[in-house]
Amino acid sequence: MNTTPLPAPTALDRIRVVLSHPSHPGNIGAAARAMKTMGLSRLVLVNPKTFPDAQADAMAAGATDLLVQAEVVPSLTEALSGTVLAMAMTARRRELAVPALWARDGAAELVVLAATGEVALVFGNETSGLSNEELALCRRWAMIPVNSEFSSLNLAAAVQVMCYELRLAALDPGSPPAIAGAGELATHDEVEGLIAHIERAALSSEFLDPASPKRLIPRLRRMFARAAPEKKEVDILRGLFAALEKAASAPKCK
Amino acid sequence: MNTTPLPAPTALDRIRVVLSHPSHPGNIGAAARAMKTMGLSRLVLVNPKTFPDAQADAMAAGATDLLVQAEVVPSLTEALSGTVLAMAMTARRRELAVPALWARDGAAELVVLAATGEVALVFGNETSGLSNEELALCRRWAMIPVNSEFSSLNLAAAVQVMCYELRLAALDPGSPPAIAGAGELATHDEVEGLIAHIERAALSSEFLDPASPKRLIPRLRRMFARAAPEKKEVDILRGLFAALEKAASAPKCK
Repeated sequence: MNTTPLPAPTALDRIRVVLSHPSHPGNIGAAARAMKTMGLSRLVLVNPKTFPDAQADAMAAGATDLLVQAEVVPSLTEALSGTVLAMAMTARRRELAVPALWARDGAAELVVLAATGEVALVFGNETSGLSNEELALCRRWAMIPVNSEFSSLNLAAAVQVMCYELRLAALDPGSPPAIAGAGELATHDEVEGLIAHIERAALSSEFLDPASPKRLIPRLRRMFARAAPEKKEVDILRGLFAALEKAASAPKCK
Repeated sequence: MNTTPLPAPTALDRIRVVLSHPSHPGNIGAAARAMKTMGLSRLVLVNPKTFPDAQADAMAAGATDLLVQAEVVPSLTEALSGTVLAMAMTARRRELAVPALWARDGAAELVVLAATGEVALVFGNETSGLSNEELALCRRWAMIPVNSEFSSLNLAAAVQVMCYELRLAALDPGSPPAIAGAGELATHDEVEGLIAHIERAALSSEFLDPASPKRLIPRLRRMFARAAPEKKEVDILRGLFAALEKAASAPKCK
């Protein structure tokens, strides 16, 4: 590890810490304090139960500036707007599109990707975690290794561990990127735009019955999460679907 | 995660977490919870201001067993009785007998030494840290790298970070959970069939000019290679393209 103090790394400025549906304002404050000790500053709150709140301020200690600057949004989709990648923290085995990364590897990957654009690290509710819908909006998953007999990591403690790992990864990036491809990665919004386009094409071609949509779109979203497509690939697919739609919508003979 | 592998239970069971003169019972409880999530169990309290305490119990969540078993002693000397090495956590640069280790290296050293006997990791008071007399009882010092502009790490958060590092140093957590419930992967031939289908649709919709095919299909092939699609996903995409082709090929008016 490099023991020389370095100037605040720009990578950390591009990492949003997103708390989705936090129940306890004390955890929000403690998370802000945890972030600031590690040089992170961008807190985004999705539909917090109680915020602002005196208990959040008290637990933030000298990090109330992060609470003042925190963005409060109604859904995870808004929280991820403009990001190139969102990584979800998960505590449980689930049906994931890709295997989860361990915390250290996930942090390293986030820091590498922060060089290319905004990224987000997403924490779920204290009790229920992230919903399947929220998980599906994230393209990577990370887990903190815990004692299998007592895995009850406090939310702010999880934020502390991850911000610590992010700081170390930013100061000493270490191993090469895990998923950096040749091209620039598509943003969250671009991938969602592609999925919306596919859904529209599937409806207009009557492949998808709006009355019985089944699991088609969630399945494709999961596949694209695994693929982590580049901008150029999203452009190609959107161009192709636009061409097919145009051909299909040419006037027909009666 | 390539630290010296030791029988994990032995190493973590031989590490005492010593909180010297903690002021806030909530921090004692949160520290117990942090320890237990990482598989540590031996908490020693030097002259705590308030203990036992309902707030400690509340913050410990499911880790109250560590509070019940905690040793309470009047001085650090008693807390270190029987140890082969004590490592002090320090937040400040001081005149130390030896340079401080970074947290990760300190944790690795403690785990190695735990193979030879009992060791202790010592945390000071929330405000004043460890006294010079207490520091002099320890033979190693470790620091958690923090933001120099805001180094106010919460006591329980520091315990969490160190116990996390101790856990990683003590055990190779292996690979994260494999994909649970993932569907059967498509074969090479099935993926190639999909790509051929996409190429046909791209040509028939005039999206792709056969005289100038560019790198479009190779790019999509690369993306599908990354995605490693399941059979079901290939079926969905082929069904969708077939529906779009059918809609596009309906007789047009002249």
